[in-house]
Formats: sequence, C-alpha cells, structure tokens
Amino acid sequence: MDRTIPYKIYLSEEELPRAWYNVKAHMKRQHPPFLDPKTGKPCPREALERVFCSECVDQELNETDERIAIPEEILSFYRMFRPSPLVRAYFLERMLDTPAEIYYKFEGNNTSGSHKLNSAAAQAYYAKKQGLAGVTTETGAGQWGTALAMAAAFFGLKLDVFMVKVSYEQKPFRKEVMRTYGANVIPSPSDTTEAGRRILKAFPGTGGSLGCAIAEAVETAQNRESCRYVLGSVLDHVLLHQSVIGLEAKAALEKYGVDVDMVIGCMGGGSNFGGLIAPFMGEKLMGRNDIEFVGVEPASCPSLTRGKYAYDYCDSAQMTPLAKMYTLGCGFMPSPTHSGGLRYHGMSPVISQLYADGYLRAVAVEQKRVFDAAVAFARCEGILPAPESAHAICAAMDEALACKRTGKKKRILFGLTGTGYFDMTAYKQYNDGTMSDSSPTEEELERGFASIPRVPAAD
Amino acid sequence: MDRTIPYKIYLSEEELPRAWYNVKAHMKRQHPPFLDPKTGKPCPREALERVFCSECVDQELNETDERIAIPEEILSFYRMFRPSPLVRAYFLERMLDTPAEIYYKFEGNNTSGSHKLNSAAAQAYYAKKQGLAGVTTETGAGQWGTALAMAAAFFGLKLDVFMVKVSYEQKPFRKEVMRTYGANVIPSPSDTTEAGRRILKAFPGTGGSLGCAIAEAVETAQNRESCRYVLGSVLDHVLLHQSVIGLEAKAALEKYGVDVDMVIGCMGGGSNFGGLIAPFMGEKLMGRNDIEFVGVEPASCPSLTRGKYAYDYCDSAQMTPLAKMYTLGCGFMPSPTHSGGLRYHGMSPVISQLYADGYLRAVAVEQKRVFDAAVAFARCEGILPAPESAHAICAAMDEALACKRTGKKKRILFGLTGTGYFDMTAYKQYNDGTMSDSSPTEEELERGFASIPRVPAAD
Repeated sequence: MDRTIPYKIYLSEEELPRAWYNVKAHMKRQHPPFLDPKTGKPCPREALERVFCSECVDQELNETDERIAIPEEILSFYRMFRPSPLVRAYFLERMLDTPAEIYYKFEGNNTSGSHKLNSAAAQAYYAKKQGLAGVTTETGAGQWGTALAMAAAFFGLKLDVFMVKVSYEQKPFRKEVMRTYGANVIPSPSDTTEAGRRILKAFPGTGGSLGCAIAEAVETAQNRESCRYVLGSVLDHVLLHQSVIGLEAKAALEKYGVDVDMVIGCMGGGSNFGGLIAPFMGEKLMGRNDIEFVGVEPASCPSLTRGKYAYDYCDSAQMTPLAKMYTLGCGFMPSPTHSGGLRYHGMSPVISQLYADGYLRAVAVEQKRVFDAAVAFARCEGILPAPESAHAICAAMDEALACKRTGKKKRILFGLTGTGYFDMTAYKQYNDGTMSDSSPTEEELERGFASIPRVPAAD
Repeated sequence: MDRTIPYKIYLSEEELPRAWYNVKAHMKRQHPPFLDPKTGKPCPREALERVFCSECVDQELNETDERIAIPEEILSFYRMFRPSPLVRAYFLERMLDTPAEIYYKFEGNNTSGSHKLNSAAAQAYYAKKQGLAGVTTETGAGQWGTALAMAAAFFGLKLDVFMVKVSYEQKPFRKEVMRTYGANVIPSPSDTTEAGRRILKAFPGTGGSLGCAIAEAVETAQNRESCRYVLGSVLDHVLLHQSVIGLEAKAALEKYGVDVDMVIGCMGGGSNFGGLIAPFMGEKLMGRNDIEFVGVEPASCPSLTRGKYAYDYCDSAQMTPLAKMYTLGCGFMPSPTHSGGLRYHGMSPVISQLYADGYLRAVAVEQKRVFDAAVAFARCEGILPAPESAHAICAAMDEALACKRTGKKKRILFGLTGTGYFDMTAYKQYNDGTMSDSSPTEEELERGFASIPRVPAAD
C-alpha cells in the first residue's frame, strides 16, 4: 500500500479556519429572495429578525463578503471537536481494488454525532450575544436537536426542542442525550402551542411531522420574551457555518498537494453538502478548477432529481415565507425511510440555484444499496456511518468502481457527515433482511407538486 | 484563558508507538503465576495455549522485555482510530475554577466507543496469524464484544460472542452493532454448550452472568477446530496492548514539556488503567519520577479498596485457573449498577501486585456522584462519557477541587476510556432522579470472601 499520505490528516489548531466562506460572493446569479406568501413581495429584513437572531439574518442576506470572521467564542467551541480528520480511505480503496484515490471528511467525532454542531455552536453563540434567554427548534431524526442542546448548554441558553412524536417515542435515547444536556424536549404535536392543539384536534393520535414541529417551535419563540427560533439546515447562514467543513478539507488536501476531481455529499436540506463544496465551488465559479460536484439524495425523497424549481413553503404547515428552491411540494410525504435527516421536501436555495445553473449534478440512490455500502464501509474503514452519510459513501463507491472499469485514477472527496449509533433500528432492519426500497410514483409526485403554492403577483 | 498548549494534542502517524510497553520488565516483584486449581501447581504453558493464541501466551509470560514490537498489520489497523487525542480540559478547569491543569486521554473516538479496540485488534490479528478460523468471547456491557466484532471483521475471522442474556435483551442496539460487523451474538446462558444447558436446567429463566458467558465461550472455543478464546481485560497481555494509551499520552505530554503529578483511571478488570499508567509507572519503578497513581473503582464493586489479596478464580463459574489478585471472591454479586464494565470481582494481577507493593492508591466512588461528574463534564467538555469513564472524571474533579482549596497547581492526567452513547438507560435513571447508590454491606463482603477457594498445597 502506497502511503505517501497519512491515513488521517489532522490540521493543527492554528490551521483552523478563522473565517467562514460565503460562496454567494462568487455566484453569477443569486437565488431570488424570500417572499411573503400573502403579498408576493420580498420579505423585509424586520420580518426575518422577528424569527431569527439578528446576526444570522445579516449573514443570510450577505451576498458580497467572501469571508465572514468566526468570532473567538465560536472558535473556542469548535476546538472541542474541530479540526475534524480528513481520512484517506486506503482500506476502502483496497477493498474496491480501484485506481481511484478516495478521501473523506469525517464530521462524526462529537457527541451530537454529526456536522450539525458547526451551525448549532454559531447560532447559540449569536443568540447569547444578542442577550436572548433562550431558543427553540424542532428535530426529526435528532442530530440537530442534540447538537443544539450541546451548544445551548455550553453558552448557557434555555432550549426547547419540539421533537416529532414518532421519533420521540421510537428514539428514546436521542431524547435522553438532549435531556442530559439540559434541553426541554417536547413531543410534537403538543398542547403547549396553538398550532399543536389545532393538529391534535384535527388528527387525534397523530405521530406528528417536521412541518408541525417547526410551526410549534416558531410559535413558541415568537410568543416568548427574549427568544428566537433556530433552524439546522436549508438557509444560507447555516450553509455558511458549514463551510468550515470544506475549508478544513481544502486546507488538508493542499497540505499534501492533492487536487480532487470530484466532491460528493449527501443532501437533505443541503447544509452539509453546501458547506463541504463551498470553497471548492467558489474557485470553480472563478474558473480556477474544474471539479465535478455530486449531490446524493434518497430515491424516496428526490427533490433535485425529480423536483420542480419553484417558490414553495419551507414547512409543510405553510407558516414560513416562500423560498425559491427545488421542491417536491411542501405537502409531499416521503414514504417512511430511516434516513430521517434527508426527508425534506425542498433543497437549500443556494444549492438549488447552483444546480439550476449547471454547476453540480445530483443522483438518487435506493436505500438497500445505501446500506450495502454502509456495512461494507463499516467493516473496512471501522466507522459505522449514519444512514444519511451512507448515501455519499454509496455514490463514492460507485464512482471508484467506475474508475476500476475505465482505469482512471480519479481523486474523490466525500463528506462523511456522521455516525449511526442512534440509528441501529434501521441497521437491524437491514441485518434482518426486512428493509425495502421505495421511490415515489408519478402520481405521488403529482400530488406533492399540487401543494406548491401559487405566488400572488407583487404590485 | 492561557493557551500555551492546544486543546487537543494529536500525534502524527509517524509518532505512533511502534512497540508496546511491558511494565513487568521493571517490576521489583512479579505477580505469582496462574495455578491449576486441582493441583495447586503453576499452570503449564501448554494449558494456556489450549485456550489462548500462542503469541498472546508468549506476551502473557514475558517478564523481561520492556518493548514488544507492534506488528505492521496491527499498526495499520491502529491508524484507523489512533493516535487518539490528548485533551487539555480548559473548559473543565474554568468551570471548576481550579489552579490545577487537567489533561485527559480520550479513547472513545471509534465505533466500539472505547479503548477495548486496542487489544481486540491485537488479539484478532494474532488469531489470524496463527491460522485460526475463528475466536469466541463473552461480553457484558458490550464494548468489548463490539470492539472484537470490528477487529474480527477486519481480519476476516469468524466470531461468536456470548452476551449476558439480560444485556442482550436490554441493549438490543449493542447487539445490532456486533451483528452489523458480522458477529454471531448468542444470549447466554444458551443451549449451545454444556455449561449453558447446565445453568439453564438449574436456573430456568435466568438472565445470565459474565461467569456463565465466559464458561460458554471457553467451552465453545475448546470444542472447535481452529478456534481460541479471547478475553478483553485482566490478563497481562491485554494490559500490554493497552500500553499504547500511556505511550501516546506520554509522548504528547513530552512534546509540550508537561510533567504530570498524578495519573487517574477507572478500574474494572484493570486493562485501561494498567495501559494508561504503564510507561509512567515503569519510570517510577526506575526512580525517575514521583507520579501519584490513582485507580478509581465503583463503591458497589470495590475489589482494591475492600477486597483480599488472594488466589481466586477469574470467573464465577470456577472454570479458569487461579490468579493471585485483589478479589471480592468469585462468588461476589455486585448490586445491579450500570457501570457494567467495572462489575468484576477481581483485579488484574499486575495492578494487584503494584497495589500490594504500594505503587498506587485506589479510591471508590458512589454512582450518583459519578453521574453528577459525567453530566457536568458533558456540558462543558462536549463529550458524553461512558459511566465507567466517568469514575475517573469524578476523581479528577475531586483532585482539582482539592487544589483549589490548597492553591496547588497540580498537573492531572486521567483516562477517558469511552463514550456513553449506548448507556442512555443509565443516564435516563439519573435524569429522572431514580438512580441509587449502593455499597456492599460487611455481610455481603463476607459472603463473597467465602467463595475464595482454598488452594491445594503443591507438592
């Protein structure tokens, strides 16, 4: 085995990025602004500030600064779990017997188990800096809720997490981690909000949905003094925070003189993929590289590969402003699958715009193939991946096997966003042979598209 | 915050130790040999080789070589998860407002979640090198079984894990991780062995015990062609493999010119503590330092602080040779506690001898204080610790608070052996306020001591 590059490239703390990378500063076309669903007009800044922390709104709207400094307090928090390793997948290469070089940036070495902590740290800090007493959020699979619980504990913020009831019941250990970090975890729908009570009345005994949990979290934040709502993906400022992934990966590769040909990431709301590709994409937009960017989504929730580029609600409860994005329709219901973190009807507006402009491609993969890849990876690279992350592994393995057929020695980087330690129910299904694949039928897609709102014409 | 030392000190791969450290080479007195319980005579080498891999027996009996080379194949496996970080606990120091400097060596950044992988990798490799088809083992809490499953998958060995039935049922996710790595996990007692059938007949419906699981694993290995039994703690060769922890910690500290005053570790069978202290202790034995070594055990299973130094069986089924060790008696039943990995009646013969000779001290801590420490640590240092590891955190915090009172600026190193992601049932008890403390009464201790065998006089 040629070992000119170490298995794991750790940057030193001095090499930690001190600014996030704002890819929008180099985009030829910016994504259109959020619209007020009632008027069809762009949302005023003040409307966003009633929901989100002010500095996050600043970042959300910033289209000009390539670098946005990371405050010292957030850097200090990052040092608990960053820099994360860039791993040369020698064992995976050997198993696949491929001429390709495979690298992965591993974000799972922290108690939240994923990259979510990068934005949680930032958003909790800004809330504290703004003098807020607390924040609210929703969580489905639980990685975001856990990450925010850790950050809120660290910065001394009160946190209420509305957890989709079916997850709350099926993932008691996720809930317990959040409680251990001091968060108040409420199964959603709950009777603590108007939105929750309305749903409970209309659908007694429902297991809840992300859309309902978002509505409850937003309502709670708005009804409280000194409280804001925070979101773990989709939005531009979340992608900005996640750019630390790509910046570290790029610095580590440059340290060893490696130019990658391809960057692969899984996509749910798009924050991990957006963060991983940001600095590489920025250079591509400036004509400095010709990297191929590949986003991987589940076949069960194929927003880029089968969705429409349209203005849609960010939540299924139709409470949020409208965002221009690839969407399956806010009313789309993906068939139950365990990659909870990828079950989102839409896609980050930044990623959507880049996709519309032809700067990246997308592939959709079926669940059983994803778990085949996950298990093969676990056995040779030692890390049991999150089902979400395994979508990227699957696509990277496909590319490496294609290299084996063509003899090309491509250099592939993929994002390994997290670990699957709290996803063993899904692994059990796989091990028991009871896991199934599913893609929406054309009819199901049409039903989803029917929920995309008609945007009123602005005067 | 003074930051002359980074938060995390990672060694480079070139700095990875290439030999284990055999502390026995410097011990003034070796621990007495294993005895055959029937004859009272030392166990012949051949008897050990019928149970364990030959190279492990070599290492078990080696009292002379300070360094034993780590084979390249094991080094290669180690690179998947080593070097592990040495962390300067700045956040913990700040929270405690102590003049002490606190460092911890964190072994939890791997899918097994603990240091156990260090010895699993070695033992699986030696089994493969010996040409064996498979190995057997037992697991209680599950960390060892998971580690061995990972190593067996990597080296292509068949693995049967006898898992204490009550754990098998209460920790379905641990079992699922092992299955994902291809291990065959059997609830013990089972009807696949004579030992298991005997127990099932005598105690229908029993939840099993570690002693019974050991008996089943040993019997299965001995009845199979090309199979041996492997053990995850207690034995000298396991401590040898774990010396990689101490060697890395020492190298990282030396890199920054830090001399520690105290090394603290939790103790169950003693392998993590023995490995952490090995190279520091070796120098103490040579008169080169005056470090204080502190082993921390649960008050519910206090083998060093309240046990007897005597020959005893290593298992409660009384099948193994006799080892000279501090013991509560092989028949001692600790009250149910969730630090499953520390519920062992005896203590590593090496640690026992060092304790008997006055080279280390031991403290016992109650469970609720341990969880107080675990939660405080999680919230400021970001890592949710395993309950076992939290015993060391608790003692380190006590020492740091003592420094606050005395004004002494001690340098404290402790071993953070693993993460608690599969221990959330215990955290739930703590969060719910239903956790209780327990120490054995004098009467319970006496009942345990009564199970210590009388050793027949050798001729």
